[in-house]
Amino acid sequence: MRPIGYVKTEIPDKDVSKRRAEMVSEIVIADQWQDALTDIEAYSHLFVLFWMHKKSDNVIEQRVHPRGDKNLPLTGVFATRSGNRPNPIGLAVVELLQRKGTHITVRRLDAYDGTPILDLKPYDDYDVFQSIRVPEWWAMRCRKK
Amino acid sequence: MRPIGYVKTEIPDKDVSKRRAEMVSEIVIADQWQDALTDIEAYSHLFVLFWMHKKSDNVIEQRVHPRGDKNLPLTGVFATRSGNRPNPIGLAVVELLQRKGTHITVRRLDAYDGTPILDLKPYDDYDVFQSIRVPEWWAMRCRKK
Repeated sequence: MRPIGYVKTEIPDKDVSKRRAEMVSEIVIADQWQDALTDIEAYSHLFVLFWMHKKSDNVIEQRVHPRGDKNLPLTGVFATRSGNRPNPIGLAVVELLQRKGTHITVRRLDAYDGTPILDLKPYDDYDVFQSIRVPEWWAMRCRKK
Repeated sequence: MRPIGYVKTEIPDKDVSKRRAEMVSEIVIADQWQDALTDIEAYSHLFVLFWMHKKSDNVIEQRVHPRGDKNLPLTGVFATRSGNRPNPIGLAVVELLQRKGTHITVRRLDAYDGTPILDLKPYDDYDVFQSIRVPEWWAMRCRKK
């Protein structure tokens, strides 16, 4: 595992989660990988895989309260997006706004400034599922509309 | 990085890609992580992150013909889902069909028998984007409907 680049943002760590929807960041890919970005801008959305370098605790709690909210049921960490997991790989679907060389501007990347990027992948029709089931607490609190 | 489990399927490697849509596999999570699966079955779809252990070539081609088809334009590897990439992490959105303890039955996991699993994450509304742009060749060949 090796970083292919880093996240650049001026948003402070503590605000990243709550400002995610409007947050615009820059992904700066190492020059050596410039050719590996060829035509990436033909996609409107990307998966970004990143290393949650500030979340790698030595002790993993297997069950957590989602969002740290004790009113929500204790839930297996694999059923949450919590950062404190056996392999602290973060995953975000982001909007690709612009690419200039090795600099990619994206919206909705919930990663801190300086986060190492592990991979970029195109998001395509096969990643879109429109009728999905989520837990009741998730639907109550987070459902769009 | 450590495997949290393995993929179990009887489908031969060579058929995985073309049979993906109907393919049913088992994800066998190590017993030590059983609690980390609590309530995962409340979600209908999951992200599966896996290590493409048969694809870790020493030489990474930065540009590839998607699907190995020379009629398709040379494309940056980060704009493809090709397995031969700097960090060979595979990503699939799968349907969760059933969980029994540490055994999870899923559909649409395009991973070979014996593939190490790195992470499971819930797929939720924030991962669904309905109006997406893909390259022309992708839309021509792969678009559903």
